[in-house]
Amino acid sequence: MPDRIRVRREPERGRYDRETIDAILDEALFCHLGFVVDGQPYVIPTLHARRGDLLYVHGSSASRMLRHAATGAPMCATVTLLDGLVLAKSVFNHSIDYRSVVVLGEARVVEDEEKLEALRLFTEHVAPGRWDEARQPTPTELKATAILSLSLTEASAKVRTGPPEDEPEDVGLPVWSGVVPIHLAVEESEYDWRRVRDGRLGPRR
Amino acid sequence: MPDRIRVRREPERGRYDRETIDAILDEALFCHLGFVVDGQPYVIPTLHARRGDLLYVHGSSASRMLRHAATGAPMCATVTLLDGLVLAKSVFNHSIDYRSVVVLGEARVVEDEEKLEALRLFTEHVAPGRWDEARQPTPTELKATAILSLSLTEASAKVRTGPPEDEPEDVGLPVWSGVVPIHLAVEESEYDWRRVRDGRLGPRR
Repeated sequence: MPDRIRVRREPERGRYDRETIDAILDEALFCHLGFVVDGQPYVIPTLHARRGDLLYVHGSSASRMLRHAATGAPMCATVTLLDGLVLAKSVFNHSIDYRSVVVLGEARVVEDEEKLEALRLFTEHVAPGRWDEARQPTPTELKATAILSLSLTEASAKVRTGPPEDEPEDVGLPVWSGVVPIHLAVEESEYDWRRVRDGRLGPRR
Repeated sequence: MPDRIRVRREPERGRYDRETIDAILDEALFCHLGFVVDGQPYVIPTLHARRGDLLYVHGSSASRMLRHAATGAPMCATVTLLDGLVLAKSVFNHSIDYRSVVVLGEARVVEDEEKLEALRLFTEHVAPGRWDEARQPTPTELKATAILSLSLTEASAKVRTGPPEDEPEDVGLPVWSGVVPIHLAVEESEYDWRRVRDGRLGPRR
């Protein structure tokens, strides 16, 4: 494992198996993409989708990003799923239950057939079944879309789960402690939502 | 307005008034913080809270980040709120309804009284009323916490809202188009959740 992707802070939360990494990437609806211009980091939200060992990211967010990506610039794609607020007996032990993935690598511009396939993956990632329902892109529309890929060679996950870790001396305090679960919810809509029919996004846990 | 914070892609979505920026920062439960080490960008999720013109970010995520921050390193804090999936008649016009804020600036390490106040803000940001309920931090606990601040001088918001923008020639296609609303939901818990009693996080819209 490359050293720079190792989880340093709270190392017991680090996960390096691809099964865990892939599941988090596949559940998250969007990522935050980091790149550097003139020494300044920029972080922007954008769509992503995974295929095997590649992470595709939608590159339409800034031309300055694309200019840099074309030269194989270093990038970082991060996804974070929020699972709960961890309320402890003490302020210090408050935390968040979450699952995140960080991917480091040099971006590559995706072209031609692979670009069409990546676009299909974006669409199916957000709304399964939608690629076949909606009108396909024209050559002009394809040209107006930019897609980058990052290898998953340097990726790690970080997961915090479970109840608060209260200090032994705090256990008796008359303060509620526990987890307030959170999830992304789909509101009622006319659309026949296929991914999850009970209004919860992502795989059941 | 500093040029590097101007929204270039889809400029009509750019918002620069502090009211919009502050509301998004205050609603989001966490941010993604970007920093650069040896030319490589890193993006990590962390807690934040706003006070006036300052954004506080929890700096416990990596010592390498803190080492750089102490020298006034350039950073980027981004928050993104997901509001809906925008399903258009064509694949190309699919989009996401969202509200995001990007803050650029040099990080400053927060100390002493201001640090305690920032910690109070983090706690109240995630769970209003909790600071007075839970045990206060000891000097040792305070020392183990690191907090950075960024000025909101260079900040901009980007907002996409409303229905899909279907092409005139697509309108007649037999494909459902519209928005599938999404929000963060709090599940049932024993905790007397104060922020929003109807299970929806953030201000009512």
